[in-house]
Amino acid sequence: MYFASDNAGPAHPAIVDAIARANQGYAMPYGADTIMDEVRAQIRDLFEAPEAAVYLVATGTAANVLALSTYWQPFETAFCSPVAHIHEDECNAPEFFAGGAKLTLVGEGDKMTPDALRAAIAKEETRDVHGPKRGPVSITQVTERGSVYSLEELNALCAVAKSFDLPVHLDGARFSNALVALGCTPAEMTWKAGVDVVSFGGTKNGCVGVEAVVMFDPQKAREFELRRKRGAHLFSKHRYLSAQMHAYLTGDLWRESAAHANANCARLAAGLDSIADASFMYQPQANMIFCSFPRAAHQRLHDAGAVYYIWSGELDGDDPQEHLQARLVCDWSISEAEIDQFIALVRG
Amino acid sequence: MYFASDNAGPAHPAIVDAIARANQGYAMPYGADTIMDEVRAQIRDLFEAPEAAVYLVATGTAANVLALSTYWQPFETAFCSPVAHIHEDECNAPEFFAGGAKLTLVGEGDKMTPDALRAAIAKEETRDVHGPKRGPVSITQVTERGSVYSLEELNALCAVAKSFDLPVHLDGARFSNALVALGCTPAEMTWKAGVDVVSFGGTKNGCVGVEAVVMFDPQKAREFELRRKRGAHLFSKHRYLSAQMHAYLTGDLWRESAAHANANCARLAAGLDSIADASFMYQPQANMIFCSFPRAAHQRLHDAGAVYYIWSGELDGDDPQEHLQARLVCDWSISEAEIDQFIALVRG
Amino acid sequence: MYFASDNAGPAHPAIVDAIARANQGYAMPYGADTIMDEVRAQIRDLFEAPEAAVYLVATGTAANVLALSTYWQPFETAFCSPVAHIHEDECNAPEFFAGGAKLTLVGEGDKMTPDALRAAIAKEETRDVHGPKRGPVSITQVTERGSVYSLEELNALCAVAKSFDLPVHLDGARFSNALVALGCTPAEMTWKAGVDVVSFGGTKNGCVGVEAVVMFDPQKAREFELRRKRGAHLFSKHRYLSAQMHAYLTGDLWRESAAHANANCARLAAGLDSIADASFMYQPQANMIFCSFPRAAHQRLHDAGAVYYIWSGELDGDDPQEHLQARLVCDWSISEAEIDQFIALVRG
Amino acid sequence: MYFASDNAGPAHPAIVDAIARANQGYAMPYGADTIMDEVRAQIRDLFEAPEAAVYLVATGTAANVLALSTYWQPFETAFCSPVAHIHEDECNAPEFFAGGAKLTLVGEGDKMTPDALRAAIAKEETRDVHGPKRGPVSITQVTERGSVYSLEELNALCAVAKSFDLPVHLDGARFSNALVALGCTPAEMTWKAGVDVVSFGGTKNGCVGVEAVVMFDPQKAREFELRRKRGAHLFSKHRYLSAQMHAYLTGDLWRESAAHANANCARLAAGLDSIADASFMYQPQANMIFCSFPRAAHQRLHDAGAVYYIWSGELDGDDPQEHLQARLVCDWSISEAEIDQFIALVRG
Repeated sequence: MYFASDNAGPAHPAIVDAIARANQGYAMPYGADTIMDEVRAQIRDLFEAPEAAVYLVATGTAANVLALSTYWQPFETAFCSPVAHIHEDECNAPEFFAGGAKLTLVGEGDKMTPDALRAAIAKEETRDVHGPKRGPVSITQVTERGSVYSLEELNALCAVAKSFDLPVHLDGARFSNALVALGCTPAEMTWKAGVDVVSFGGTKNGCVGVEAVVMFDPQKAREFELRRKRGAHLFSKHRYLSAQMHAYLTGDLWRESAAHANANCARLAAGLDSIADASFMYQPQANMIFCSFPRAAHQRLHDAGAVYYIWSGELDGDDPQEHLQARLVCDWSISEAEIDQFIALVRG
Repeated sequence: MYFASDNAGPAHPAIVDAIARANQGYAMPYGADTIMDEVRAQIRDLFEAPEAAVYLVATGTAANVLALSTYWQPFETAFCSPVAHIHEDECNAPEFFAGGAKLTLVGEGDKMTPDALRAAIAKEETRDVHGPKRGPVSITQVTERGSVYSLEELNALCAVAKSFDLPVHLDGARFSNALVALGCTPAEMTWKAGVDVVSFGGTKNGCVGVEAVVMFDPQKAREFELRRKRGAHLFSKHRYLSAQMHAYLTGDLWRESAAHANANCARLAAGLDSIADASFMYQPQANMIFCSFPRAAHQRLHDAGAVYYIWSGELDGDDPQEHLQARLVCDWSISEAEIDQFIALVRG
Repeated sequence: MYFASDNAGPAHPAIVDAIARANQGYAMPYGADTIMDEVRAQIRDLFEAPEAAVYLVATGTAANVLALSTYWQPFETAFCSPVAHIHEDECNAPEFFAGGAKLTLVGEGDKMTPDALRAAIAKEETRDVHGPKRGPVSITQVTERGSVYSLEELNALCAVAKSFDLPVHLDGARFSNALVALGCTPAEMTWKAGVDVVSFGGTKNGCVGVEAVVMFDPQKAREFELRRKRGAHLFSKHRYLSAQMHAYLTGDLWRESAAHANANCARLAAGLDSIADASFMYQPQANMIFCSFPRAAHQRLHDAGAVYYIWSGELDGDDPQEHLQARLVCDWSISEAEIDQFIALVRG
Repeated sequence: MYFASDNAGPAHPAIVDAIARANQGYAMPYGADTIMDEVRAQIRDLFEAPEAAVYLVATGTAANVLALSTYWQPFETAFCSPVAHIHEDECNAPEFFAGGAKLTLVGEGDKMTPDALRAAIAKEETRDVHGPKRGPVSITQVTERGSVYSLEELNALCAVAKSFDLPVHLDGARFSNALVALGCTPAEMTWKAGVDVVSFGGTKNGCVGVEAVVMFDPQKAREFELRRKRGAHLFSKHRYLSAQMHAYLTGDLWRESAAHANANCARLAAGLDSIADASFMYQPQANMIFCSFPRAAHQRLHDAGAVYYIWSGELDGDDPQEHLQARLVCDWSISEAEIDQFIALVRG
């Protein structure tokens, strides 16, 4: 019963097989491998974006900070949710790659609202050269609390950004889970909504370690390449990144894997929802659940070896009825049996 | 006949197998996987350094710049050869990760000499706060021209650094090839000589993409961890880095692979040496050859599909006798047949 | 009637005279001038800190960012008020000089409270290497809203910082105004409270352009010197900075000038307080007032040529009774007649 | 007898008077003062550049690094002489302000030659993304060894830069001395030759501390403003910078002062040239001399209180006939009597 993160489960066997298959003979290094040519075509097809620039890196943080910093000047501030990965979980990597730029936190929740975004942007640049200038808007989809922006919400946020002539970045570490949840196309969730550059995640959804950066206007492609190399994120044996992404995009593996994870999550959520003592902090929409239930249930889970984060509260404590919050993440590899066992333990 | 680089050949099958074997069940992310515990022990044993701090990253540039910047202040200059990878081939990554520090180029050749190093270090810091302060010394072993520093040379360079109380970094992207060439122990080539931190390469010697950073004094270990995360070089699914390094160090694969590459290179060098019209620019000592021979020979090779870098000169040209320089790199996977075919084509 | 800022009035004549007097013969450059020796002694006496390291720069932002960055690692976050000058008015200079570090905003108001500071510090570093590490605490005295932390408040904030072993920086751009308001000694407002490094302002209080950075523990003095040079803030003709600071500290000019400014402000505040239609947003404690009164009064002031910032609202508008907020800053040079004229115009 | 540097002498009284005269009433801060309007017009007239963007800062290093970094990407390398101030005397400030960019040293001497520059530029960018990209060319006029580039030389260097489409920066810390030496116009020495941005020095030529940055194409003016603020180099009480520059440009003070310094230097050079035992390392062309003469002469000077740098060699030593090199800099304030006394002491 591992619900700690979608980065702790195994990779999909097809991904590992692809790495093995790619391990034949010589291949041009640094992204000039022929598999990458296919990946580029796959992604352009998938996103209905024949001009898009497509690059691969190995970590989600690298995808985010290289993508963002290409659209971000060091005297600017970027706008994001206060729980955005780029703010809370990247140890100042965005600020570092942007040369000392700033992040402005928008609103209080996991989702930015158009009004809060408009107000935050409007407030900056009222101070001539003294305050930072307005920079890119970064949206996380799925959010760090498991919520999914609807297409209407995405369009509205991008419209605010565009009204100030600001670029939009989408942190899509869980892009596929969001897409499956919305039932829309990749184009609808990106450039048709107004997104300029997306971090299209593979790692959390069954890959070993690969993320694509897709820039719909290729104008800054060369700058991205230089920033990637300068960030030490250009792989010499690039074919093994290409092979992962190629397998991921072949036969809709990416979509199946996300659908599987979301279905697992829905099963888990339904089970928890049926328990009187359990309540959600956020409505689960993709593959992540934040749920509160009594300490006694946590202790039963703990004793049975379940692994997940206690998001607030302490397992040790006197009151068995006190509610502690759990963060539960499902990946493709979780079995229905594990889920049902987990639910049964919460129910007690 | 691929002699372009040791990053263009396939990974050793044992490495890919290890990735597949690691792909079972859950593993703690971010370096807390159990395979990493074994890797740490393997490397400490190998280097006879029970206290060493050991970290993995996926690219050689990442290993270099994260290792160096941990020992480098932004107002300092680091000392290296004018052909060092950190100077010529990392697109300002060292300067970036060091917060805007400088590199001072020592001497004219691929190898730094103790005298040139002493003079270069002595010259800095004669200008009070106006000039940069003295920073770390970075030595590349194997050098970018295929030479190998002897233990005496390494000891002498480190002694110069120590006489100024400066830390020493060893760029060991081809560490194993050097070690095989010298027939010494890892400890002799590092901390016993005076090296403080080493980039211990795996990628060029048969791995998919993994490099270890070994810090013999663990005092700066935590800072390194923070710099790695901030550089976006911490892998969530770290087990796949661990698995590669584990397989690489198991059963002396790393040493065999390097021995194979060096032997291939020696065979190629011997063949070229027997050709009157071919001459070496540097004496080949590990797995890399810089050799000059007539354009006509290059054209024969080209027509036969041989792949390698023409280091100076142009393949197109009128004079078939004009000498062009070739850079030839052997990896573990080159066959003797290919080498012999290459030699035959040069001979004509 | 100029109440726009204390950086728009003239310098005190004694400061300009000192520059002229210093303009005799040769002087060692870069801070080795003999006047600087006297300044160092003056400041050590003033702060009762015989070991303190003392440096001069020409702008308040330079003093802040050089002081802070000497105590701040790039993977850390510093703590400050959401209206701190370092956050709102330095165009990312702190983030730049700290190599891409972050600022965490504490609370909602101009003053940080110990509880809010403790909570903000406690929240960071719960994420291992993923979140930024805890960095220095920066306190602004006088705050950007004209409030003054009491000694009790300063001590409490510093105690929180010390409980987490964090250094404390005091942005004292209006240090003298605060000191006069509190009636305490410089030592009480700094190191006795727990402040490690202070930006001791001269510019806003009658100098041409000079700020001292005082580090009570000289351990990082050399690093500061290197950061100052690298920031391009080391003056070759340093004697003209020294001369200003020397005159400022001679005969208590600094205290008189601040006392004058504070008295002007008190007179203005008393006048405004007597007007039914005027109300303070913050209780004026030093030389700055945030006050709300009707548009009609603003228009009278405007027509009479008064210069100040309308902090919120627009001068143009239909409703003469609508309240607009004014920011009013008094420097030493304002006359009582101007103040009284201003009050009369508000009263109408 | 002070020949240590042109930053150790007094400011011209007219400059200090201007500061005093500017010290009347209120002035808009941050460069919006009315004196700055006049300065802008003066500089545009002087340079015959009606569209030029003009900014003031207080140090030569600030002028250089802010000017250069506005034309420099962090993944680029800038080209300069190995003795350039930006390389040797700014403690990595250029690399810092450029976000971690690199400097490529051109040739061996104080002057870059067109051939060496072309070769250096050509060599970069042969490595695709691996090496740094080509960045701006920075020329120092007067050089750090007292030489002056002729207009032909300047034109030829700029032509090389332009052939690679690279911007050109002129470090004019001693711009005026060079101009007087060449007898040309400011336009001829800058934009007519191909210079894009110049650091026009005031400090070394009789000001207290002011340098202008002149950008002939104003396209990057706003970025410069933001970089200046972010570098903490925007003065609140800007009028005192404006006043200095205004006085400096009024009545040709700048030219007279430089002419005076150059004439002093010529007198000193003529005297030294008449001494058999003295020899120049560089032909003096402006206000700086590098001259070699016996230790005994140095000791006579030392005993008489002369102040200057012994550039190589040590005053203490056994052999009175051994030659030591002196660096001798003349500013406007040196008297003929001092010069003659110095010569007499060398002659012995």
